[in-house]
Amino acid sequence: MSLSPARTAVVLLSGGLDSATVAAIAREQGFAVHALSVRYGQRHGAELDAAPRVAAQVGATSHRVVDVDLRAFGGSALTDAAIAVPTDGVVAGTIPSTYVPARNTILLALALAHAEVLGARDLFYGANAVDYSGYPDCRPEFVLAFEALANVATRAAVEGSRLTVHAPILRMTKSAIVREGLRLGVDFAQTVSCYQADADGRACGVCDACRLRRDGFAQAGVPDPTRYTSAAVRRA
Amino acid sequence: MSLSPARTAVVLLSGGLDSATVAAIAREQGFAVHALSVRYGQRHGAELDAAPRVAAQVGATSHRVVDVDLRAFGGSALTDAAIAVPTDGVVAGTIPSTYVPARNTILLALALAHAEVLGARDLFYGANAVDYSGYPDCRPEFVLAFEALANVATRAAVEGSRLTVHAPILRMTKSAIVREGLRLGVDFAQTVSCYQADADGRACGVCDACRLRRDGFAQAGVPDPTRYTSAAVRRA
Repeated sequence: MSLSPARTAVVLLSGGLDSATVAAIAREQGFAVHALSVRYGQRHGAELDAAPRVAAQVGATSHRVVDVDLRAFGGSALTDAAIAVPTDGVVAGTIPSTYVPARNTILLALALAHAEVLGARDLFYGANAVDYSGYPDCRPEFVLAFEALANVATRAAVEGSRLTVHAPILRMTKSAIVREGLRLGVDFAQTVSCYQADADGRACGVCDACRLRRDGFAQAGVPDPTRYTSAAVRRA
Repeated sequence: MSLSPARTAVVLLSGGLDSATVAAIAREQGFAVHALSVRYGQRHGAELDAAPRVAAQVGATSHRVVDVDLRAFGGSALTDAAIAVPTDGVVAGTIPSTYVPARNTILLALALAHAEVLGARDLFYGANAVDYSGYPDCRPEFVLAFEALANVATRAAVEGSRLTVHAPILRMTKSAIVREGLRLGVDFAQTVSCYQADADGRACGVCDACRLRRDGFAQAGVPDPTRYTSAAVRRA
């Protein structure tokens, strides 16, 4: 029996499949999880609606939602209604239009602020370099650069503490993430990944996020618990 | 006469003396200045009220205000009404209670997003390591670490462009900043630095920001154009 208090971690939690798994991994590693979601003007508000349920399901100690309206800048299909979400299934190669400029830098900066006030020394986020290789801020070198920044940016850094940015699913395939989440008891039916889910959280089935998620369940050989729109079901 | 278009820069503009000077420096270097202010829940809203006037006065091409409510995290005298703004004149040594956790990381992350959408390769911000030596995110190593991050975080970085984070007043004393601003035609009467200015933008005269600013004008040997509250005038 240990009398030491649980270590505290801030976990960026979108409400989707990846970050739910990351939160469960942090819990398994013994962290008290303080989940942070960011309402940044994303069109997929249903994902954010799912975040409190996901936080509770994975056993988070707290869950907080912070607002920052990135629609002020635009430049992404996720924050500008005038840019269509791609549904043609082409994911690899160039940076997709669903890339939100500097989004993960902003999310991690907010997580860093939360961590600093909580006295947490650990940040977790669900970057994945396999499926989303086109996103600059999901690459290993980005994670390392942010960790280096965090270690000069804060009061803790000045006082000699070391901050760690954990990206535990960085090199996992989607099917490996699904298997890891199931092993840890994540209820993926609570999560929403679709870039254009309807108000009830039902997925379109055709955007990149849906395709990757569906393929992940298929390749893991487990049932897909995602709720799809009736149009998506007809197409399938 | 040059036919080349002006280079574009994003300049973080608080409405205070330092960032006004930084914007003027960027203009002198030939940049088209896109000013960015952030309403982060700071108690000194009067500074932000001054920002549009300052942006216009220094010749900014555009000015934008983005909201992110850091009161959600607290932990600073500037974002938590329950923590008093220090007025005892002790600036050096430990990190002051007016330090806002991870604030400059967040501000620069937002500037990076704006720059990425604009296609700008240059960010300017008014970090100063002389007067505010207690703030971790005003140190030279922080500026370098953010620049390193910016150069892996964005589409431009992936495509081979180089981003530069300019902190032109980093090593200037306040009096040197005052002299530089005056040389460049900055109207400091438009700027507000006070941490607890009243609704009309009149300064308290006793907070750290007021003391540093007043000493800066005195040491530069120029009149202080700051509008003070009547209580501040009586104390002086």
